[in-house]
Amino acid sequence: MKLWDKGLDIDKKIEQFTVGNDREIDIHIAKYDIQASVAHAKMLESVGLISKDELQLLQQQFKVMAEQVKNGEFKIESQFEDVHSKIEFELIQKLGDVGRKIHTARSRNDQVLVALHLYYREQLQQIKTLSNEFFKTLLNLAEKYKDKVLPGYTHLQVAMPSSFGLWFSAYAEQLIDDMYMLDAAIKTVDQNPLGSAAGYGSSFAINRNITTRELGFSTLKYNVVAAQMSRGKSERTIASVLGSICNTLSRFAMDICLYTSQNFDFICFPDQLTTGSSIMPHKKNPDVFELIRGKSNKIQALHLEMLLITNNLPSGYHRDYQLLKENMISGIQECTSILEIFNYSIKQIQVKTVDIRDPKYLYMYSVDQINALVEQGISFREAYQKISEQVQSGTYKSGQSKPHTHSGSMGNLCLEDIRKKFPN
Amino acid sequence: MKLWDKGLDIDKKIEQFTVGNDREIDIHIAKYDIQASVAHAKMLESVGLISKDELQLLQQQFKVMAEQVKNGEFKIESQFEDVHSKIEFELIQKLGDVGRKIHTARSRNDQVLVALHLYYREQLQQIKTLSNEFFKTLLNLAEKYKDKVLPGYTHLQVAMPSSFGLWFSAYAEQLIDDMYMLDAAIKTVDQNPLGSAAGYGSSFAINRNITTRELGFSTLKYNVVAAQMSRGKSERTIASVLGSICNTLSRFAMDICLYTSQNFDFICFPDQLTTGSSIMPHKKNPDVFELIRGKSNKIQALHLEMLLITNNLPSGYHRDYQLLKENMISGIQECTSILEIFNYSIKQIQVKTVDIRDPKYLYMYSVDQINALVEQGISFREAYQKISEQVQSGTYKSGQSKPHTHSGSMGNLCLEDIRKKFPN
Amino acid sequence: MKLWDKGLDIDKKIEQFTVGNDREIDIHIAKYDIQASVAHAKMLESVGLISKDELQLLQQQFKVMAEQVKNGEFKIESQFEDVHSKIEFELIQKLGDVGRKIHTARSRNDQVLVALHLYYREQLQQIKTLSNEFFKTLLNLAEKYKDKVLPGYTHLQVAMPSSFGLWFSAYAEQLIDDMYMLDAAIKTVDQNPLGSAAGYGSSFAINRNITTRELGFSTLKYNVVAAQMSRGKSERTIASVLGSICNTLSRFAMDICLYTSQNFDFICFPDQLTTGSSIMPHKKNPDVFELIRGKSNKIQALHLEMLLITNNLPSGYHRDYQLLKENMISGIQECTSILEIFNYSIKQIQVKTVDIRDPKYLYMYSVDQINALVEQGISFREAYQKISEQVQSGTYKSGQSKPHTHSGSMGNLCLEDIRKKFPN
Amino acid sequence: MKLWDKGLDIDKKIEQFTVGNDREIDIHIAKYDIQASVAHAKMLESVGLISKDELQLLQQQFKVMAEQVKNGEFKIESQFEDVHSKIEFELIQKLGDVGRKIHTARSRNDQVLVALHLYYREQLQQIKTLSNEFFKTLLNLAEKYKDKVLPGYTHLQVAMPSSFGLWFSAYAEQLIDDMYMLDAAIKTVDQNPLGSAAGYGSSFAINRNITTRELGFSTLKYNVVAAQMSRGKSERTIASVLGSICNTLSRFAMDICLYTSQNFDFICFPDQLTTGSSIMPHKKNPDVFELIRGKSNKIQALHLEMLLITNNLPSGYHRDYQLLKENMISGIQECTSILEIFNYSIKQIQVKTVDIRDPKYLYMYSVDQINALVEQGISFREAYQKISEQVQSGTYKSGQSKPHTHSGSMGNLCLEDIRKKFPN
Repeated sequence: MKLWDKGLDIDKKIEQFTVGNDREIDIHIAKYDIQASVAHAKMLESVGLISKDELQLLQQQFKVMAEQVKNGEFKIESQFEDVHSKIEFELIQKLGDVGRKIHTARSRNDQVLVALHLYYREQLQQIKTLSNEFFKTLLNLAEKYKDKVLPGYTHLQVAMPSSFGLWFSAYAEQLIDDMYMLDAAIKTVDQNPLGSAAGYGSSFAINRNITTRELGFSTLKYNVVAAQMSRGKSERTIASVLGSICNTLSRFAMDICLYTSQNFDFICFPDQLTTGSSIMPHKKNPDVFELIRGKSNKIQALHLEMLLITNNLPSGYHRDYQLLKENMISGIQECTSILEIFNYSIKQIQVKTVDIRDPKYLYMYSVDQINALVEQGISFREAYQKISEQVQSGTYKSGQSKPHTHSGSMGNLCLEDIRKKFPN
Repeated sequence: MKLWDKGLDIDKKIEQFTVGNDREIDIHIAKYDIQASVAHAKMLESVGLISKDELQLLQQQFKVMAEQVKNGEFKIESQFEDVHSKIEFELIQKLGDVGRKIHTARSRNDQVLVALHLYYREQLQQIKTLSNEFFKTLLNLAEKYKDKVLPGYTHLQVAMPSSFGLWFSAYAEQLIDDMYMLDAAIKTVDQNPLGSAAGYGSSFAINRNITTRELGFSTLKYNVVAAQMSRGKSERTIASVLGSICNTLSRFAMDICLYTSQNFDFICFPDQLTTGSSIMPHKKNPDVFELIRGKSNKIQALHLEMLLITNNLPSGYHRDYQLLKENMISGIQECTSILEIFNYSIKQIQVKTVDIRDPKYLYMYSVDQINALVEQGISFREAYQKISEQVQSGTYKSGQSKPHTHSGSMGNLCLEDIRKKFPN
Repeated sequence: MKLWDKGLDIDKKIEQFTVGNDREIDIHIAKYDIQASVAHAKMLESVGLISKDELQLLQQQFKVMAEQVKNGEFKIESQFEDVHSKIEFELIQKLGDVGRKIHTARSRNDQVLVALHLYYREQLQQIKTLSNEFFKTLLNLAEKYKDKVLPGYTHLQVAMPSSFGLWFSAYAEQLIDDMYMLDAAIKTVDQNPLGSAAGYGSSFAINRNITTRELGFSTLKYNVVAAQMSRGKSERTIASVLGSICNTLSRFAMDICLYTSQNFDFICFPDQLTTGSSIMPHKKNPDVFELIRGKSNKIQALHLEMLLITNNLPSGYHRDYQLLKENMISGIQECTSILEIFNYSIKQIQVKTVDIRDPKYLYMYSVDQINALVEQGISFREAYQKISEQVQSGTYKSGQSKPHTHSGSMGNLCLEDIRKKFPN
Repeated sequence: MKLWDKGLDIDKKIEQFTVGNDREIDIHIAKYDIQASVAHAKMLESVGLISKDELQLLQQQFKVMAEQVKNGEFKIESQFEDVHSKIEFELIQKLGDVGRKIHTARSRNDQVLVALHLYYREQLQQIKTLSNEFFKTLLNLAEKYKDKVLPGYTHLQVAMPSSFGLWFSAYAEQLIDDMYMLDAAIKTVDQNPLGSAAGYGSSFAINRNITTRELGFSTLKYNVVAAQMSRGKSERTIASVLGSICNTLSRFAMDICLYTSQNFDFICFPDQLTTGSSIMPHKKNPDVFELIRGKSNKIQALHLEMLLITNNLPSGYHRDYQLLKENMISGIQECTSILEIFNYSIKQIQVKTVDIRDPKYLYMYSVDQINALVEQGISFREAYQKISEQVQSGTYKSGQSKPHTHSGSMGNLCLEDIRKKFPN
């Protein structure tokens, strides 16, 4: 059944190509289409387009369908183009003319748009919650390992002393920047687009404030053309923000893969977290972190897909927008699962004691030696030259390490300050 | 002069390759390096690493250099790697040992990082101001042309009535979403990274709160490793946000180019805004809008460059980060100039009267006809079928247009509500 | 069953995350893994690592499995990580120790690599065949409509006369460039990687020439490290080449969507190829071409995903590479279906007669007027100025059109020359 | 001077925005515009549009200008939009009416297009030459260090023995795939677009075979619409191919940066190739290889810029295309300089002797142990289990290394076979 059926044959090949796997994808937004339809029905009643009784009948049916969705019993059979056709068909089957009224003053574009906004808002809030859990895990690890030395590298060359405390909490604080972006993205989808119909509004005197309130949106996307233009734009924004989070995650995973290499050997994980090789019996590979890295990198590419689908298209709906759903939804789910598994795995990290007397770490405290000279009254640049000459001539001797005490340094991680920065 | 000169010959070819055009690029951040150096010097004095007199001497020199930068007289000669080497050299030339103290407790990475943060913050705020001006221009145009009909398209097919008022204010409201993202980006660079030194902090007891206050940062990027990791991350974020603004601009420019085509003929511009052809004497091409579109699309690609430079690199500084500056800075300047020229040009738009009696617009009010039937008590889906049959059989007659009254529709643009949504 | 099973418990959550949907994806490469395994077995026999009898037993089992794959009866149950584990398990079940020998002198990385090479080669050749069909369709359309005028645009402004013949054959000739790239991509996968084992070769004296010949590869990817490094590199190349084809397709689809708009009205399609709206009964939307455009744009984004997964990773296998398969395979299938449906649909195009006397096309022949003056002996630039003044002053009158006769022009499409350029 | 000057004032702001820095960019293509103009003039003479004498006069002037370009004396003053206006102006200044004839039967789009084709063809051939030099350097290094052991990694975990010979020649063979793509790209620009005029051909009876022969093109881009559509398409292709080369280079540079880290310590470079730190006197950083990596990554992003500028634009010239030149040209130059500097630097590599008795390399020969058991008649999978148990129980003892002899393995690098694969 098609909402726009005019009694014409539609080419079968074409149908398959155009419908694609919308039916499977739409299962993810069924819940939200029902939510929005209930709000729409209430609004129709309040402005007199349907009666109180009709509203009640519709609400009953929506309740039944919402229950089916919840229990995984809701199906979109192959005769339906999408979840929206299926739901309208179901209402008409059960309620006859009352069902035929539900589409009054709205369009399918409207439905997709509002359902996606609701879906995105909920999923992004869930991602924020998971990010917060991961953030807290990292701060706990930072606290636990705050005194464990870790060589600090620049240019992948041994540079200066760092610590596991610094390392863990660095990624925690980095995540806060991602949360600023995430909050902004949530704000963009927390605006009611319902009422834009096919993108040019309706000649019915609908009341969009009612659906805004019913659906808990913070504000309206007022302009109906703007509402429709947010298709693609929201997805581009969300993909970019997920990419931002995943950028932090993938770089952290890269560090982990490097630090588990025998040549660094700073950390390891229990055997259950590693996987083996089909030919090398000794391998215990950090596949889970490689896959976190790889999946995070995939998500970082999503932004471009969303962009390319919509870029340079004139305003007004285009069918291309249908293609935004599939990978956006799977990207959101992937991002969610990465955060869950990363949080779960990182807790099992085993931090090793680095032997800093190893010759490769000899110069790690060279700046401290300069600083000691500065404290004796020599200017920094002169002291730098002095130690430099010792290094050149081979007379340099490793000296005492000096404590770091300033805010955000090894000796003063400011974990509580960082914790407070995480946005509510 | 190199800050790290150890008396060794550096290969000339290599030097040219590694220094690149840093000298030209660094002119853009000279002002900010000086600002941050002044703050650093004050802090050094406050913690006793330099004396009051030394601070005064340094401040005098910084004042002179700041003046030179302002007047375009500041030069980075070819013997210097970058602006930072040049400034330190200048101080040593003028002040001897006092100059040799300025690098105490900081690193060049530190300097670049804080100077870029200051630069980005200022430039992004400027972009916000320009966006706001453009936003207001669009709202004014929407108000002015609120009653002018514009055919609304879906699938590039004539769909339903729209208006110039809707069209202009749609892009205005769309810009608000970009501002949410822009504000988040400003937040990420409005954190003091100074004090992270080479990315692992300092063993001097520096006071980062002083530089935070002096430079007007809202908070600290506490963790010194996180501070350094924000290289690339900030640029990725900024590029994504500029890309978001430019996405709105490029789509608007696409509409303009399409609507100036003789086949649409909805708008035009004065001759001075158009350019000609080397062989076709009749051409008045909308090059300025094509270039707004093209330049906006270039900026949308910038995000990927920033990402690719840093992705999958382990933590700690890498020289690759130096490459982030050039196109980020030129992208920011390009975005600024696009906003200026777009605002300037769009004000000169000439809106035409569309002849909606032209046969191609025949069905533009078909939904209104359905709605009229619904108001007579027929269910929406049934009314849809009725009108559909008229269209199929060729008996359809264009009817009366019905007014749109709901929030955000043609007849009720809610411009004041939209105006209020623009974030401060 | 895992090939690397060491009797340890593997964390269930981790397993789900790491295996992902490899089982579904691997169905696509089962056929090729079997092909390559047969070749490997023959080679093992030829160098004496298995006996003739063992080879026969293995061949029998492979034949059974190949048949199952062909009939869609081959299953990878949930206890198997992937197709490779499943096949080895099956062989051991059926043949005992003989099955345990199949993995001699190869690695799973090896198997994935060679199976993918075989899969890619076959699929790309299929895409070339489909491109050739589409190419021929376009040339036929060009021939058929060679005399039908089409306004030519620059800057979306009416510029000079063009023709449907030119338009169709332009996209045909553009496809040839894509074929140059496609052939190069086929060349990169037409090299035998088998024998690289885990990326560092084998200490068995295997003979890679035998498998090269058996599998019909043109040459060897000799260096075993290079062979392994081609993971990701091949995918990046293929995605880029598919993107190139899709770039041509998406721009063609854009033209089609524009030209079906009522404001251009140059072409149309039978009703069965169009789809409708849920609220506007008059809509006959060119969804199929919008989806061709959108799906083509998605494929153009694929290149970046392949790149981001592998970029900046040190040499040697990483588990991230597993993630290359899924979207690469679905991209190939999508590209195939786009070509099929585009070829099918474009044949149904209905070309309209453009009324070039419409005022909007007034200046379409202005260059011909200049050329007429040049033929009278006036220099080009002077003639240009003359006609320009007529246009400015409103005295310009549309003149005669002059024939175009040079190679590749409207009057001389050179279709046979273009046909010959299509690479074999 | 504008070629399309109609006596109207052009807005100054607009002019600056639209012309951009075309004047600086165009210096790179001046040489090619002159080459193509000479060919065009010869053709005009041959078809009778100018006289023999006029041709001679034009040729003389072109010779003078070509000389100026060669000596760096050619200037595009600010009153000219671009190189094409400047050259035509110069001809008119010197030759009066003869100069006014040069633009007969061509358009500026034509000129840009053919000049870029000539520029690209020459630059890409130069890049191929440089790639070949680099390739030979790598094979020489492979030969020189063929017996030096290098640990082989998978998942960044110590896996199996490799060698410096394998490592160097792996990147050499990988480059061959890039050459396949490069050759295809050269083929796409080695087609004569001249004669397409503004994209719709000319009504003069020009002879495009003459210019094809004069400019040494292998064939014509026949269809004039296709010729114009190659704007953006060529750039997308070239950027993708440069990205392919740079992908190989950046990954090689990543290996180098990792292997110079103290934790791997497999290679080093002379001090003159390293750079220092502003605060750490001991640093000898591999900046040159980090910049090779970073610059290569930048070039990998270029493809997207080219794509975004042109994607979804309808056929026919758009001014956006002007923006393709700048970063394409600088990308080509950057790629050239990367190849030069990489070739220059890699020759200075110092290969270290890896102490494979270090405990971290203990299991590097575990597969050889399995293979030894297989040679005693045990099946591979059973042998794998046996050694696996030894590893688990801690009873594993490092055994003898077995020689690798098959094609492409450590012991049989097949350097001559690889050398022969490099396409002419």
